[in-house]
Amino acid sequence: MAHLTETAAGTREFGSLRDVPESSAAVVDLLAVLAYGELSAFDRMAEDARLAPDLTRRAALSEMAGLEIANYRRLADRLAELGADPAEAMRPFMAAIDGYHDQTEPRDWLEGLVKAYVGDSIADDFYREVAAFLDGPDRDLVLEVLHDHRYTDFVAGEIRAAVEADPKVANRLALWARRLVGEALSQAQRVAAERDALPALVMEGTEDLQAVGALFKRLTAGHAARMAAVGLNA
Amino acid sequence: MAHLTETAAGTREFGSLRDVPESSAAVVDLLAVLAYGELSAFDRMAEDARLAPDLTRRAALSEMAGLEIANYRRLADRLAELGADPAEAMRPFMAAIDGYHDQTEPRDWLEGLVKAYVGDSIADDFYREVAAFLDGPDRDLVLEVLHDHRYTDFVAGEIRAAVEADPKVANRLALWARRLVGEALSQAQRVAAERDALPALVMEGTEDLQAVGALFKRLTAGHAARMAAVGLNA
Repeated sequence: MAHLTETAAGTREFGSLRDVPESSAAVVDLLAVLAYGELSAFDRMAEDARLAPDLTRRAALSEMAGLEIANYRRLADRLAELGADPAEAMRPFMAAIDGYHDQTEPRDWLEGLVKAYVGDSIADDFYREVAAFLDGPDRDLVLEVLHDHRYTDFVAGEIRAAVEADPKVANRLALWARRLVGEALSQAQRVAAERDALPALVMEGTEDLQAVGALFKRLTAGHAARMAAVGLNA
Repeated sequence: MAHLTETAAGTREFGSLRDVPESSAAVVDLLAVLAYGELSAFDRMAEDARLAPDLTRRAALSEMAGLEIANYRRLADRLAELGADPAEAMRPFMAAIDGYHDQTEPRDWLEGLVKAYVGDSIADDFYREVAAFLDGPDRDLVLEVLHDHRYTDFVAGEIRAAVEADPKVANRLALWARRLVGEALSQAQRVAAERDALPALVMEGTEDLQAVGALFKRLTAGHAARMAAVGLNA
């Protein structure tokens, strides 16, 4: 709701956007993939919270899930402002995102934490990258739905402590993190192959394919640094 | 967090409350039962959202779950302020609340909606009643964690439309609502029998057992009115 007020004085006139210009198709696609990402992250995190060894930890992951659904609401509101039906706009991305989650169901609490840590962090890096290609209100929104560092710090601390307490879990969790990234990349390629508008948006802001490669390198480097921070090899 | 600021100028000095006076035991019990109620409502609603027939409705119930966990956080923060460990304080109420949910797992979307409608509404009425027995900051908090009417209205509208579209579902849902209330009462009696402090708090604010009977009558009357509002017999 705060966003509505903030952007009311923005460069775009919301009222005139009911008629979405063709160039907005990519923005709708982008907000929709983020929105379904949040909605499904809520659902899976809420389920993964049941793996927690105690109530305090269960509540912490539940609260992280709560933030995802709050962010979903903001993205869905913006889609509606742009004249899009959020459910319709999200539909093309359901198979890929559900596929990712179905292939990466955590078997225990630590796997759930690593999934939240890896997923939220890469998502945030990706949000920051694509924000650069967006106009005022949409850029602001995407930067505002970044994950809360307090929770990421909590998750990182939990993983680090588990690895320190039992170095043997490091190998297992490092393998798990690689599987998460691999599955995410394969589903991202699936989306890119099926939807023209979305890769076009990213390409538009970059000069050539090399720049897209550089983007992936930055995302991978960020991931590797975060893995190292919790005692895992990327 | 807003609560912290609002109550900083309240009648109680938080800093001095680390040492909980014995009379606070009932307040801790009350906030703890509400807190675990919110935490488990989050968990069950997040699961029930999967029963939704479409993404829009799934998101709506997911958002309701998100509000429950946000309210949980506020209650847990207050418990910590009072010097209680939220997890420890909630533990005595887990069996009753989990028992309620285990006995009332919705089999379909409409049962999930009726459960959210009945449960949230009775909870809100109960919150308003017990708020009268609390001091400043705790009373404010309990009144602030009432459910958002927009969602209750959404749920009521969905049930009403389903009953109008197919009057045969009215019988089934009315039976279901009675089971929800019966199960809730039986678990509430279990809590009352096991915990002395909590009933004492309510009794303290009432003159005699008749007043407690009157409280139950008011809760039941409110429930009956809400059932009628969606086309169901209480």
